[in-house]
Amino acid sequence: MVSDRIRHTVVFTLIHQIGSDREDDFLQAAQQLAAIPGVEAFEVLAEISPKNNYRFGLSMEFANQAAYEQYNAHPDHIRFVQERWLSEVTDFLEIDYAAR
Amino acid sequence: MVSDRIRHTVVFTLIHQIGSDREDDFLQAAQQLAAIPGVEAFEVLAEISPKNNYRFGLSMEFANQAAYEQYNAHPDHIRFVQERWLSEVTDFLEIDYAAR
Repeated sequence: MVSDRIRHTVVFTLIHQIGSDREDDFLQAAQQLAAIPGVEAFEVLAEISPKNNYRFGLSMEFANQAAYEQYNAHPDHIRFVQERWLSEVTDFLEIDYAAR
Repeated sequence: MVSDRIRHTVVFTLIHQIGSDREDDFLQAAQQLAAIPGVEAFEVLAEISPKNNYRFGLSMEFANQAAYEQYNAHPDHIRFVQERWLSEVTDFLEIDYAAR
């Protein structure tokens, strides 16, 4: 990863049944975060390791800390967290990577 | 991520003092895993989120599950786990991503 770049990731599980329409609807809503300015390399992923209980992941990159903070403060991000994440995600862990 | 591709990641903390030579030596040894056949997009990363206690990460990609299993079974990987990982890593979590 290049010097100031940050890869923001979050693994999570949903309240919804596996393979359900509501699960799919949540993941489609999450995909919309890709449109927020500063978000690069956005991915909605399946988490497949048998060594943890998380089922999904989001991964995105920011050019620097300022772009990351702009994303966090963006109304579309805040709305997604308040209207979807808080009520539909049962467990999650945020992991952020930078070059060393 | 393309269909069969797997992104294998692990976040971890070390027994060593932050910024110490022994920490650096461990991370350099980890970097050698990149030479194992099938390993792509290998990265040794700093974990920078204040929301967890992990300090480092490894990220790599495999073309498919067979390449991932070949890596796991490779003598250089097994030796690294036995000679370094088990005695120098205090906490870790493996997270594997695939396309959905």
